[in-house]
Amino acid sequence: MIQARILIRPKEGILDAQGKAVEAALPALGFEGVGHVRVGRIVELEAESIDRLEELCEKLLANPLIEDYEIETIG
Amino acid sequence: MIQARILIRPKEGILDAQGKAVEAALPALGFEGVGHVRVGRIVELEAESIDRLEELCEKLLANPLIEDYEIETIG
Repeated sequence: MIQARILIRPKEGILDAQGKAVEAALPALGFEGVGHVRVGRIVELEAESIDRLEELCEKLLANPLIEDYEIETIG
Repeated sequence: MIQARILIRPKEGILDAQGKAVEAALPALGFEGVGHVRVGRIVELEAESIDRLEELCEKLLANPLIEDYEIETIG
């Protein structure tokens, strides 16, 4: 079994509403010097093989129209 | 500026509703051999220093009652 970590992020140029919300909240909480916030999802799973993980991302985990994904495997 | 990646996951023992939803959808899509799915959030940001990132997680990014977070820095 392999452990996979899939990072799913809004594509460049697509509005990242959660990231903007975090950025907007920072000054009120006194956090200066923090910016360029992007919020995405992480999916961690075990799979017997890496072969179909890309298909899994395309069909179920990500929305390829508006999201990019990156598959990292551990072991 | 440092680049930080913050991984936020449901704590062990807390129901991971999104992970369960993914697991439930796998058989209908023909994905065998995939399991132990956990879904969390990833927050990527730039910060002038790492000093207050833990505080940022506690106060804004994560819900420490039900979520664990992990801070990775790049450069």
